[in-house]
Parts: sequence; structure tokens; C-alpha cells
Amino acid sequence: MEVLKVDKLTIAVINGPNINILGKREPQHYGNETWDNIEERLKKLACKLKIELLLYQSNHEGDIVDFIQNNMEKVNGAVINPAAFTKHGYSILDALTASDIPFVEVHLSNIYSRGGWHADSIFSEKAVGVIAGFRGFGYEMGLNSIIDFLSLIKGE
Amino acid sequence: MEVLKVDKLTIAVINGPNINILGKREPQHYGNETWDNIEERLKKLACKLKIELLLYQSNHEGDIVDFIQNNMEKVNGAVINPAAFTKHGYSILDALTASDIPFVEVHLSNIYSRGGWHADSIFSEKAVGVIAGFRGFGYEMGLNSIIDFLSLIKGE
Amino acid sequence: MEVLKVDKLTIAVINGPNINILGKREPQHYGNETWDNIEERLKKLACKLKIELLLYQSNHEGDIVDFIQNNMEKVNGAVINPAAFTKHGYSILDALTASDIPFVEVHLSNIYSRGGWHADSIFSEKAVGVIAGFRGFGYEMGLNSIIDFLSLIKGE
Amino acid sequence: MEVLKVDKLTIAVINGPNINILGKREPQHYGNETWDNIEERLKKLACKLKIELLLYQSNHEGDIVDFIQNNMEKVNGAVINPAAFTKHGYSILDALTASDIPFVEVHLSNIYSRGGWHADSIFSEKAVGVIAGFRGFGYEMGLNSIIDFLSLIKGE
Amino acid sequence: MEVLKVDKLTIAVINGPNINILGKREPQHYGNETWDNIEERLKKLACKLKIELLLYQSNHEGDIVDFIQNNMEKVNGAVINPAAFTKHGYSILDALTASDIPFVEVHLSNIYSRGGWHADSIFSEKAVGVIAGFRGFGYEMGLNSIIDFLSLIKGE
Amino acid sequence: MEVLKVDKLTIAVINGPNINILGKREPQHYGNETWDNIEERLKKLACKLKIELLLYQSNHEGDIVDFIQNNMEKVNGAVINPAAFTKHGYSILDALTASDIPFVEVHLSNIYSRGGWHADSIFSEKAVGVIAGFRGFGYEMGLNSIIDFLSLIKGE
Amino acid sequence: MEVLKVDKLTIAVINGPNINILGKREPQHYGNETWDNIEERLKKLACKLKIELLLYQSNHEGDIVDFIQNNMEKVNGAVINPAAFTKHGYSILDALTASDIPFVEVHLSNIYSRGGWHADSIFSEKAVGVIAGFRGFGYEMGLNSIIDFLSLIKGE
Amino acid sequence: MEVLKVDKLTIAVINGPNINILGKREPQHYGNETWDNIEERLKKLACKLKIELLLYQSNHEGDIVDFIQNNMEKVNGAVINPAAFTKHGYSILDALTASDIPFVEVHLSNIYSRGGWHADSIFSEKAVGVIAGFRGFGYEMGLNSIIDFLSLIKGE
Amino acid sequence: MEVLKVDKLTIAVINGPNINILGKREPQHYGNETWDNIEERLKKLACKLKIELLLYQSNHEGDIVDFIQNNMEKVNGAVINPAAFTKHGYSILDALTASDIPFVEVHLSNIYSRGGWHADSIFSEKAVGVIAGFRGFGYEMGLNSIIDFLSLIKGE
Amino acid sequence: MEVLKVDKLTIAVINGPNINILGKREPQHYGNETWDNIEERLKKLACKLKIELLLYQSNHEGDIVDFIQNNMEKVNGAVINPAAFTKHGYSILDALTASDIPFVEVHLSNIYSRGGWHADSIFSEKAVGVIAGFRGFGYEMGLNSIIDFLSLIKGE
Amino acid sequence: MEVLKVDKLTIAVINGPNINILGKREPQHYGNETWDNIEERLKKLACKLKIELLLYQSNHEGDIVDFIQNNMEKVNGAVINPAAFTKHGYSILDALTASDIPFVEVHLSNIYSRGGWHADSIFSEKAVGVIAGFRGFGYEMGLNSIIDFLSLIKGE
Amino acid sequence: MEVLKVDKLTIAVINGPNINILGKREPQHYGNETWDNIEERLKKLACKLKIELLLYQSNHEGDIVDFIQNNMEKVNGAVINPAAFTKHGYSILDALTASDIPFVEVHLSNIYSRGGWHADSIFSEKAVGVIAGFRGFGYEMGLNSIIDFLSLIKGE
Repeated sequence: MEVLKVDKLTIAVINGPNINILGKREPQHYGNETWDNIEERLKKLACKLKIELLLYQSNHEGDIVDFIQNNMEKVNGAVINPAAFTKHGYSILDALTASDIPFVEVHLSNIYSRGGWHADSIFSEKAVGVIAGFRGFGYEMGLNSIIDFLSLIKGE
Repeated sequence: MEVLKVDKLTIAVINGPNINILGKREPQHYGNETWDNIEERLKKLACKLKIELLLYQSNHEGDIVDFIQNNMEKVNGAVINPAAFTKHGYSILDALTASDIPFVEVHLSNIYSRGGWHADSIFSEKAVGVIAGFRGFGYEMGLNSIIDFLSLIKGE
Repeated sequence: MEVLKVDKLTIAVINGPNINILGKREPQHYGNETWDNIEERLKKLACKLKIELLLYQSNHEGDIVDFIQNNMEKVNGAVINPAAFTKHGYSILDALTASDIPFVEVHLSNIYSRGGWHADSIFSEKAVGVIAGFRGFGYEMGLNSIIDFLSLIKGE
Repeated sequence: MEVLKVDKLTIAVINGPNINILGKREPQHYGNETWDNIEERLKKLACKLKIELLLYQSNHEGDIVDFIQNNMEKVNGAVINPAAFTKHGYSILDALTASDIPFVEVHLSNIYSRGGWHADSIFSEKAVGVIAGFRGFGYEMGLNSIIDFLSLIKGE
Repeated sequence: MEVLKVDKLTIAVINGPNINILGKREPQHYGNETWDNIEERLKKLACKLKIELLLYQSNHEGDIVDFIQNNMEKVNGAVINPAAFTKHGYSILDALTASDIPFVEVHLSNIYSRGGWHADSIFSEKAVGVIAGFRGFGYEMGLNSIIDFLSLIKGE
Repeated sequence: MEVLKVDKLTIAVINGPNINILGKREPQHYGNETWDNIEERLKKLACKLKIELLLYQSNHEGDIVDFIQNNMEKVNGAVINPAAFTKHGYSILDALTASDIPFVEVHLSNIYSRGGWHADSIFSEKAVGVIAGFRGFGYEMGLNSIIDFLSLIKGE
Repeated sequence: MEVLKVDKLTIAVINGPNINILGKREPQHYGNETWDNIEERLKKLACKLKIELLLYQSNHEGDIVDFIQNNMEKVNGAVINPAAFTKHGYSILDALTASDIPFVEVHLSNIYSRGGWHADSIFSEKAVGVIAGFRGFGYEMGLNSIIDFLSLIKGE
Repeated sequence: MEVLKVDKLTIAVINGPNINILGKREPQHYGNETWDNIEERLKKLACKLKIELLLYQSNHEGDIVDFIQNNMEKVNGAVINPAAFTKHGYSILDALTASDIPFVEVHLSNIYSRGGWHADSIFSEKAVGVIAGFRGFGYEMGLNSIIDFLSLIKGE
Repeated sequence: MEVLKVDKLTIAVINGPNINILGKREPQHYGNETWDNIEERLKKLACKLKIELLLYQSNHEGDIVDFIQNNMEKVNGAVINPAAFTKHGYSILDALTASDIPFVEVHLSNIYSRGGWHADSIFSEKAVGVIAGFRGFGYEMGLNSIIDFLSLIKGE
Repeated sequence: MEVLKVDKLTIAVINGPNINILGKREPQHYGNETWDNIEERLKKLACKLKIELLLYQSNHEGDIVDFIQNNMEKVNGAVINPAAFTKHGYSILDALTASDIPFVEVHLSNIYSRGGWHADSIFSEKAVGVIAGFRGFGYEMGLNSIIDFLSLIKGE
Repeated sequence: MEVLKVDKLTIAVINGPNINILGKREPQHYGNETWDNIEERLKKLACKLKIELLLYQSNHEGDIVDFIQNNMEKVNGAVINPAAFTKHGYSILDALTASDIPFVEVHLSNIYSRGGWHADSIFSEKAVGVIAGFRGFGYEMGLNSIIDFLSLIKGE
Repeated sequence: MEVLKVDKLTIAVINGPNINILGKREPQHYGNETWDNIEERLKKLACKLKIELLLYQSNHEGDIVDFIQNNMEKVNGAVINPAAFTKHGYSILDALTASDIPFVEVHLSNIYSRGGWHADSIFSEKAVGVIAGFRGFGYEMGLNSIIDFLSLIKGE
């Protein structure tokens, strides 16, 4: 878990299983980007937006729950790619809901264009919004939009 | 149908029924933005991106099909909010598919967080990507990402 | 679109496709009445009730949406027979909901006594009430009951 | 069971369980009317229409079957609100069908606008027509329309 | 409830709602027999078989449960036509199961040849056997076969 | 295929696959009777009823279709136990329907009391009646009832 | 209906059909307790808790509705075992809802561990809580917990 | 709308949305024919058959309804390819049914061999017959067969 | 199995069960044609088209599989009416697929206009095209179109 | 993992994910109790019942499986609140089944009164009993009833 | 049907339709093996295992039933590849069950990796075990494992 | 995690939760073998096949994902028994797919012969083949067949 101190708002970027080996797997679905590329771009964007980033990935559902519980006090919003936990990661969704901070759901591929279990997400119902199909660029869209959402809330 | 001549790439922004009266309807779902606000911001973004915008809205499914057929030669990509045609606008989807230009699907509200007919979209399966829940800001995200996608394609 | 100036309240009576050729089609379902008969009786009832009637029929879903958008300022309530748009006319339902005026749903035949697609209506969930099976008389019941509903609202 | 002798036609108005305590329960669904109010208005309308009314309510499915069997010779038509028997009161529907007299189905609330078991009625398929959502006024609409239906039959 | 004293075995013949008015209703489904005809033939058969008959009919589900509870000590087997309670008369099925005496299920019409609710029976799963479609003759088949079944049991 | 010449009416008794080895298989479902026992009793009953019996069994769906086509001129009614063809023997059902002679469906066990594929029969919808659960005795019930049915038809 | 006068709070304990013959039926599901045993223990607990008990059982759905309507003024909470009415006793649920007093649902056996119709209850959705599988002891748990719930409410 | 005067019988050939751009779209589904090719062949066949052709295409569901209403007096039969209206074009089906003239349903591709929404047609149930998978040749098959059907009717 | 030597291409015309007794059965579905009429017309058409015909019918699924396996070398295309094997004749479909020759599926009646099992065909997904509802004429349409298809393939 | 040595019987109280932060989350579902409150009351009850308590909570499904495997020798019964593992925690259910010790399932809220995934539990089918809706008090009910169950078993 | 006399145990290897032409059909699913290759390897394995093999294949469901009935006395176990009868060959499954000898189910391809009808097998529920996806090698695995199973049974 | 160095090919044998306590649980499903027995036999077979074995078991889904990621470079194929992760272990399936090495799925019991959740496996669709029902022997079958598969691949 890396912490980049920047400024006021703190956004957690949470990744589910196998995102750490991104770029080694099925390129027809996810493109050739590696997670390192995406992470670098996210850090630059965080600098520009003057926010603090909490980057976290785990193959363990329980570890993600622990991470959310441990950081729920200092996190203002989250960008989450639940990956293989998209359909059954209820304990993560429960932890997110308990933390009462808004989150944006991001998927690298367009989960709706593929058959099987990719399409149904238990997270979408409670998400601020959903972004799917824009590969690594989706994280930047997610980061921008959660900041946009938080500004809006504050302005109301 | 307004045409803003800017530069090389031409992107159609297509809106389904009732988007023209946006801001008059259920604010709990769509926020208080009017279409005029969104349009203005889109034009600014188009200037910055040096692209040509084709803005179109209609309450008539057939008119949208006609629009796509008439402009299919000059359009490079599209951002579409099918609104009430999300679930059954097969003739629009057919026209988009026949035009062989990529499109991004945008929804003002998070269609997955509301019960009933809003959740299933016949467009998602063929879309480059889907953006839902970020109100008017979603159009700008859509415009950015379709341009990003077209650059990627060209670069390949 | 005919306008009969009578007095204060204005009620739109909206008919979906093929109601204009009523009486030419399947008499076992709809009886032998023509729309002209029904219209005449509705105008008499409107005189008696001292209300203004806006009568509209179209075979085009988009035209009905346009009609509702164009008249939403001056209409206090509506009686609608969606006919073939009963199951999928979401853009009409959206327009009605956006207009924030109550409506009564009327069907000439008892749509529940016939198999197939006639039974499910997307309008019923948002309607003040539903009247089905009383042929042309159903419009008069609908007119009476929407007036009754508006008086009730005002009295509260 | 009250009997009001008026004239030629005899109409049974049949109520299922808990209608007798109407007005004590969930006002958001049924309004503040009590059954006494509705009954009084129905008697007035019966006088005006010169018909005989048979008013009956029971919390017992079997009692309603007995009532229909005992009065099937003298009843020309019926207005029925099956209430909690709407979905499973097959023995009442059987008795009504065996009696070979037409009936109109009435529901105080718009059963289609509420989730759960209220929406499906086994009676609608065999009813002359269905009226839902107009509170106590629905009974008067029902009475008017069953008389209208019987006149029509006779005239044929 | 009639009791015919004959000899050793006692068989209950139980009829659900509306069988008492048999012959007045839909002849296309049930033929022109009245219950009196069937009862007479059943009594003759009982004489011939030297068994005691307990004939019972009620429009009330609870009364049939009471009847079974009150007679469970002296009844050796049952022939039941659940009629309109075929699909939901769980309390009758519970009472029959608690009584631990075998029963044969009889239906006047072939319930499988008609659409709708007639086809599914909650009784069939626990019945010795099912007889459907032979009108009044089905009761005699039922009586014969329950006696046959009881002899078999005893012989084992 | 055995033919017993007796008198006027000719009834075919048709058995599907594996009935020929009855008694060797699962006794908990079918009892200990063998087909020879049942056949003997059926022949006695045929003598008593003064009818001609056509007994046929095959493990081949097509052979049963051939049998029905070849004997359709001389057969007045049929008793059929489709056995393993109960759910998918459409060509047998087609042949029976084309022959325009009534048939009674018989099952040795109560097919409704067992889970799985035994419960649904494509034959029941077109059968005069259905008898299930009375083991070999069911054939005699079937023979009696098809004769009863044919007498009734003739008498009308 | 027995009434035990004790003190302030009055709790109705309502049993559906066949609970009166408890102990005679399927011991593998319900154990060997009789209702008399359970009743005795409930009365002792009521003494200890200083509450008034209203004990009621009926095989008639309508009688239970009458009982609830007649006692709704004096009852503060209820413990109900709907037994065979668990899935379709809508009129009882309506009466309970109309009475606006909280109720706890109790089942003698674990209805979830048995297949078939026992598992789905229409009462659970509106119950304070559900207790299943603890035989007669479940009523005492129910009584304790409804008292606990009422204290909590009062304390708020 | 073109009108080719030939002789007695008049057949309407109606095409739904996007058929006008045939040949530009997905060749793996529809082959390389353009509508102009097909139209030319249809006119030749009409000459040979000595019939009058009414050729009509629209992207607007309402326009097709208007077309059918306006020409229902002079048209004897129709060949229709509903294209994207295959599944939900109820107003067109209603208009066709109201016109009481037989129609043959034609699809360019084998709609049953492709997944998704292409397979279910609301038109098939009321069509004289269905032809799918023979590309442009299907229209000629349709024209031949509707003429064949009309001759048959007249000959009866 | 008849063989008509004509010329180059060889087309198998395969009929499932009961087509051999066509004309004896339900005329409301299939018209009054007999198979002999249709066969004669097919032979004439084969002469005209200068093709060889292989006509085959069987009530046995396995025989049709054998026929296809035995003739797969010399057959260029097939016209098949699977009749009662339409829904479950997987071994025939497997044999057809293994033979790698294109086939057209023909049904005498419009299988989509009738309820029940007639509508779903396992053959349609792999067929060149489907023709339904044109009685015996459908075979000639099928023969013409499979020849048309084979010419097209060769031309490519 | 805390161990309280008391006396003979040892009961495990197992909690799934997020129960450790109870009281911080959605109070409308779970009340304002914290886990510390509940734990304290459970320890008191254990003292009174003279049993040993094994209290365990984890956000990790695998940890709960490890816990059960490690303690299966010394545990006599369990009270489990599977929380977010209620629907898919098969490995926990497998471990519980393999341990052959009875368990009671407890839910803080009435899982049946809330829509969505809360209602279906894979544990209920194998549980001694189910208690839902009584907040922290449910654990005490669970502890009492598992002790009651174990006494019963021993007494048999 | 070939019989290879070897020694004690006799195993039937039964193949459903079209396995006889294996190697001519879709190689992407079944590899390039022919049945002759597989048969040769099976005979060698039988020699090594010192068992008698009964090899049988038929395109006729009834013939397979006859084969099982005729050899049920001498067969100790079976390896069956039901092929196209996998989903509906109930008469074969019935014959296998009646023969009371254990069988292993083998599929050349991984039936679970292909959509459509290949995945559901009525045989699996009663099989000793299932082997799918290992082409011809699967038969040898099946032969080994049925022998293994029979040894185990004998050893118990 | 044990590593046995043998020779060229490396095969991972992966077991899901509770396989480590095999032999302590439900013997009617899994026989009396312990994992130690199976492991010993697997090691012997590995020696004979001259392959390297990687044996791994975990109760933690995430640990299995880590194991696959860490060893994906050196593993040539896998034999996996997902146990309780059979239906929802998407992260494991994702890791396996990303590793691009073939795997065989093994189940100790015949998962198709047991009701409930055991039957559906998310792994089967992507597996080389599936082996179920042969207890510990299934692992040896799996090892043999994955080696067979890898030889085949290399030979192509």
C-alpha cells in the first residue's frame, strides 16, 4: 500500500484480484497496458488535482475489507475495480457502505459486451457512477469524476 | 441540428427523447442542469479538442435513424444517450452498427441504481464503453474517451 | 388536434395508434363504436363538467411526446389510451412523468382477459387509476374520475 | 347482508376481508373514507338507477361462496372487490362463473402501482371490466358500468 | 354429513367448494351429471363393497379440516376431490397427512387438458393415485381403487 | 402383437419401453407384478366386456407410430402407458391425434409423487382422462373407463 | 379463546390450522410435544413477565381475521405461527398490518431445511423477526422477544 | 412510395428501418445485394404475375402504420420485412390485423441462427407464413406465395 | 426410398414421422393435400431444374440418421421437414451437421402461429433458411431455394 | 480469539465480516448496539449457563474455515452469524458440516424483510434453527437454544 | 455387436448415434481419431485387464434399449457415450437402471465448454462417474475406472 | 507447499478448502480415503511419469490465486479440485486463465448426482476435461490425462 501525500482530499484506488498481473493476461479484453503504466498516470493526475492517493490491490477479499475498515476515517472517496469480486464480493460492498464514502466503479473492459458472469455487478446499485470499457484511462475518468462529485456535494 | 465546424474529427452527440426538457424533470435523478448548460460546456471542450461536433436530439426514433444514415459518411465517432430508447431502440442500434463508427454510451443517472426498465441497455453490448451516473459531466467524459479511442485505433 | 374552450380545467385525452380507425377493426374486442361517437359524447360531458378538452391521436410515438411537451403548461390532467404503445412507449411515459400532471389510463377492452402482450402496461404503475373493458364508456369514466381526483387534490 | 328493494335489476356488491374496517388502515393506500360513507353513496346511486342492491362483506372465503350460491337466482350482475382474496380466491371465482352473471372487478387502490401480491388478480380474466385506483368512487363507477353492460346485452 | 352404516371399512368421500351445485355449471367441462346422481351410484357401490361411506362437502376450507380432524379415528381411507382448493388447500393436505390414512385424488374433468390453475395439485404428491377426466365415474374408480389399495396393504 | 378376437369394439393397449421387463425393476415404484400377470387379467376383463384387445409393446418410438398407423382403421379406443416416452414421444402423440380415436393415459406409479422428469406428460392434454398410481390395476381401470367413454359418445 | 388476566401488556399468541392436534403428527418434523405442554409453559412465562396472554387457534382463515379485528384495540403485540397459511394467508397478514401492532413469526420446524411450500412465508417481510426450528421452545423465545421489542420502542 | 400499375391484385411490399441502406451493412448477415437489385427483380416478377406492386420503406414505425391505414382499401395482400420492428412493432401488427388482408413475413437472414433479439417475431403468429434466410430471393418467394395463398382463398 | 435420376445436383427431401399419412389428419392445420400430390409436383420441378431427387420418409429417428449417413457422399443439399422430431431430433441434426451439406427447413403449417411445442426447432439454428406455413408449396419453395443457394456458393 | 473457561459444554460464537464495526454502520437495519455490548451480555449468559464460549470474528472466509477446523475437536455446538458470507460461504458451511456439530444461524436484522441478496441463506438448510431480526438479543436466543438442543440430544 | 471373450468380468461399451462416423465430423470438437482407432486401443486394454468387452453402437434409441435388455444378465458394468441421446434418452436410462449394473458416462468433448444442448445429461445423476473432454482416451479412462469401481464393491 | 523434483514437465495439483481434512467428513459422498493416501499414490505416479509435482491446498481463495501467480512461469499444466470454490471462485479461474496453462477439473464425488450447489462449476467451461465421481482415483486419472493432453499439443 503506497501513500502519496499531496493535499486535502484523500481518494482510495482499490483493485481486486489479478489486476497486479495486468498486461500478462488476455490482451483482447484489456489491451496491453500494465498496471505500472496506469499507476504512473494516476499519480500525475493526483498531483494535478492536488489530492492524496491511497493505492491498494489484493487477491484476498478479506484483505480489501480490512483495508477499507482501517482507512475509512481518512478516505473521502474511492475508485474501485472489483475485478473477479464484481458479482459476489458482498463483504467488500458491506465495508464500503459502512464507510459512508462515495465510490465510483471502474472496469477495464466493457463488461456488458461479454457474456457470462462479467455483466452483473453488485456494486453498481450503490455506486455514484459506473465507467466501463476504457481500459486504464477509466481510472483517470473515475478519479476526475469522484473529485467532481465531492465538490458538488460540498457546494450543495 | 447544429453544426460547429472546428477541425478534422467529427463526433456526433445524439440524445433520445425528453433530453430537450432536461432540468424540468425529476431532479432527484438527473440534477438541476439544463441541456443548454451541458451543450455550452461540450462546445468549449470541442474547441479545445479541435474537433467538429454534430449535436442532435429528437423525440422520434425514426428521426434519429434518418440522422445517422444521413451523416454516416462524415462522422468518425458518436456519443449517444438513448434515454427512453435504451431498451428497445433496435432501429437506432442497427443504424449505428451499419455506420461502422465507434460510439460511447452515456447516461445522466446511474441506471443500475434504479429499479425497473432503466438498467438494461441494448446499446451496451456494441458500445466502446459505458458511462453512467455523472450527470452532464458524463458527456464530456464521453467526448474525451471517444477521441482517446479513435487516436488509439489510428495508432495501431 | 382539436381544442374546445369551455372553462377552467384543461384535460388532454390522448389516443395511441389505430384508435382513429376504431370500429373498422376486430369488433369482438372493441364493440362497434367508432371514435366519432365517443368523441361526441366526450365533448358533451366536457360541456357539462365545464372543462376544456384537448383531443389528440397519433400513430407516431414521437408525435405524442411532442404533443405532451408542447401542452404541458396548460394541461391539468390527462386521460390516455396508449393502445399499441402500452408495453413499450417509455418516451411517452417519461414525457407524462416530466409534465407532473396526473393521468388516468383507459383501455377499450379488458386487457387482462386476453392473452399475449395486451396485459402488461408500463403506464399503470404511475397512473392515478386504471379503467379497462368498458369500451368507449371508459373515456367518460376516465374524464369523470380525473376531474374527481383534481378536486380532491385541490381540497387537500 | 342488507337488502334494499328498489326495482327490476338486482346487483350484488361483494367485499372481501378487512373492507369492513376500512378507514382504520393504511390511509396512504386507500384514503380516509370509511365503508359507511361508500355504502351511503352506493344506496343513493341505486335509488337513482332504480335497481336493487345486495350488499355483502365477509372475512371468510367460504361465506362469500355460500352467499353467491344462495343468491345466484335473483342477481343480475355483481360488483366485487376481492381484497385479500384477489390472487387465490378460486372458489369465489368458480362460484361467480357458475352463476353465469357478469361482474365488474373494483379495487380501492391502484393495485398496479404497488409491488408484491396486489397486482395479480385471478378475477380480471373473467371480469367484464376492471376499475382500480379511484377509492370509494370506484364502486359507483362499477355500479354504473355493470348497469350499462346489462342494458347493452339486453339491447343486442 | 350423511353416514351410511354398512360394514367394516369406512371411506370418506370429500368434496371441495361448488361441487354441491354440480350440473348447474359449465357443462363443457363436467358433463350434465348432478351430484345427486353420483351420490346414489356411490351408495350402491358401497353396499356392494360392504363398506361404510362418509360423504362430506363444504365451501369452507376450515370446515373440511375440522371434518378430517373429527373423523380421523374412524376413517380408513379417503377419496377427495379438492376442486378449487386443489392448488392452495395446504391446511386440508396437512390434516390428511396428519391423519395417516391413504387417499385417492379425483377430478371430474381432465385437469391437464385445460390451461390455467387447474393443472397443478398440491395433493398429488402425497396421494396413493390420481384419477382425472372420467366425470362422476371417477368417484367409483376412486372408491374401488382405495379399497384395492387397503386390501393390498393388509395383505402385505 | 397379440390379437384376441372377442366382439364388436376393439381397444388397443399400448406400452412404451421397458414395460416388457416389468417386475425386474425398481419394486419401490412399480410393485412386484409382472406384465404377464397384468395381461392375463386384461384378457379376462376383455372377455367379460366382450371387446377385442390389441396388445402392443415396443422399445422403439417409431414402431409404436407404425403400429398406430397400421391399425388406425380398426381401433375404437386406446389405453396407453407411454413410459419413458411420456415427455418427448411427440410422434406417438401425433399418430394418436391423427387416428382420431380417444385414448386413456395410464401410469403404473403415481408420477406426480416422484421428482424429476416423470411428472410432465405431453399426452395428458389430449387424453380422455389420466389414471396414475394404481399399478397393474390401472390398466383395468383404463379399459373400463375407455369403454364407458365410448358408450357415452355413442349414446349422445 | 382463553384469557389470562395478569397485568399491563397484552400479547396474542395465534396458531393456524392443525396446531391443535400437535403431537399426533409427523414427529420427525415437530418432535413429540403436544400443544397442551407448550401452552402450560407459555402461561408460566406470561406470569413471570407479568403480561396478559390471548391464546387463539383456528383451522379457519376467516376466524383468525375476525379474532384480530375483534381484539386489535387491546393487543400490544403478537406471536403468530401461521402453519398452513404461511404462504397464502393474505387476509390474516392484512388484518395484522391494519392492526398496527408488531408481531413475531414462529415456526416449530426449520421451514428452510425442508423442500416444497414450507420455506416461503408472506409474513416474514412484515414481521419484527422470525424464529424457526426450535419446536415449542420457539413460542417462549417469541414471547420474550416481542416483549423486548415493545420495551425498546417505548424507550425510544 | 412507388406505384406500378399492372393488373388486378395489389400486393404491398413493406420494409422496416435500414433496409434502404442494404448492402452497406454487415455483409456476413445479409449478403452483398442492394435494395435496388431486389426491387428490380420484384418488379419483373410482378409483371410476370400480372399484379400491381406497392413498394414502401420507412425508418418510422408511425409512417408504416399511416401507409397501411391509407392503402388498406386497395391492397389484397402484403409481403413485410419488419426489420428492427420485428419484436416490438405492435402498432404495425395492429394496423395489419385491422386491415384484414393476409401477409407473408420475410427476413433476409435466418433470424433463428443468430443469437439475441433477432429470433422472436410478434408478426409470425398472425402471418400466413414465414420465410427466413434466403436474402433478396426471399421477397420473390414471398410474392409468389402470397399470390398462391390468395388464389387458394378465392378458389374455396 | 425412391431415386429419380435426372442430372448433376442431388437433393434429398426428408420427411419425419406421420407425413406419410398426410391428408388424413387435422386439415385445419395442414390443408387437404396428400403427400402423393406434393411428391408428384416435386418430381416435375426436379425435371425442370434438372436435378436428382432422393425422397425419404420414416417414423423412426434412427432410420433417418442411417439414411443421411448412407447417402452423405452423393447428396449436395437437403430439404427437411422434421415434423414431430423438430424439437428433440438431435441425432438427425448431428448427422446433418456431420454431412456438411446445406439444408433448408420446411414446415407445412406456420409453426409460429400455434401454441405448444410446434414453435421451437433445433434445426433452424443450422439451416440455410426456414420456410413455414405454405403447405405442400413449401417443399417447392425449399427445392428452389436450396438450388439457388448452391449456385451462389459455387459462384463465390 | 478469546477463550472463557467455564465448565463442560463449549459453544463457538462465530461472526462473519464487518460485525467487528457494528454500531458504526446503517443503524436503521441493525440498531445502535456495538459488538462490545453484545459480547459482554453473551459472557454473562455463558457464566449463568456454565458453558465455555469461543468468540471469533473475521473478515476472511478462509480464516473462519481454519478456525472451525482447528477447534472442531473441542466445540459442542455453534452460533453463527455469517453476515456477508450468508449466500456464498460454501467453504464455511462445508467446514461446519464436516465438524458434525449442530449450529444455530443468527441474523441481527430480519433478512426476509429486506429485498436483494440478504434473504437467501445457504446455511439455513443445515441449521438446527434460524433466528432473525432481534438484533444483539438474537445471540442470546441462539445460545439458549443451542444449549437446549444439546440437552435434548443427550436426553434421547 | 462384437464379443471378445477374455475372462471373468464383462463390460459393455455402448455408443449412441453418429459415433460410427467419428473422424468425418467437426474435428474442432472431437479431434481426428476414428472409432476404429479407439476400438483397437480398447481391445488391447481389455486384454491387459483380462475382461470381456461387449462393443455396441446404434443410431436407434430402441436398439440400445433392446441391447441392454438382452445382455443385462451377463454384463457387470458399462461405459456409455450417449451422444445425441444425452439429454432425452430416457428409455436407455430406464433400461440401465433396471439392469442394476453400474455405468460410467463418457463424452469425447468437454460438453460443458460448449453452449447449447450438450451440457445437460440425464445420465450423470445415476452414473458412477463422468468423464468429459479427453477424446478417445476417455473410453480407456472409463474402462479403467469401472473396473476399479467393481473391485471396490467386491472388496466391501 | 511441497515440491517434488523429478524431471521435465511440472504439474500443479491444487485443492480447495477442506480437502485437507478429507476422510473425517461425510463418507457417503467421498469414501474413506484420506488426503495422505491420495498424495502418496500421486507421488508414485509422478515418479513413473517422470514429471515434477507441485502439491497445494488452501482454505483461502486468495492464497490459491497467489500460488498460481507465483508459479505460473514454471507450471506446464494443472489438476484442480476447486471444492467449495467450484461455483464462485472467479478469481482462481481468472488466475488460471491468465496463466495460459491447460488444467483438468477433478471432483471426488459425482457432483451431478447430488442436488444443490454441487452441480454447477464455473471451471468446466475452460477446462481441458472434467472427471467426477471416482474418489481419489480421479486425481490419478487427471494427472494421466493432462500429461496425455500436453504430449498431444507438443506433437501437433
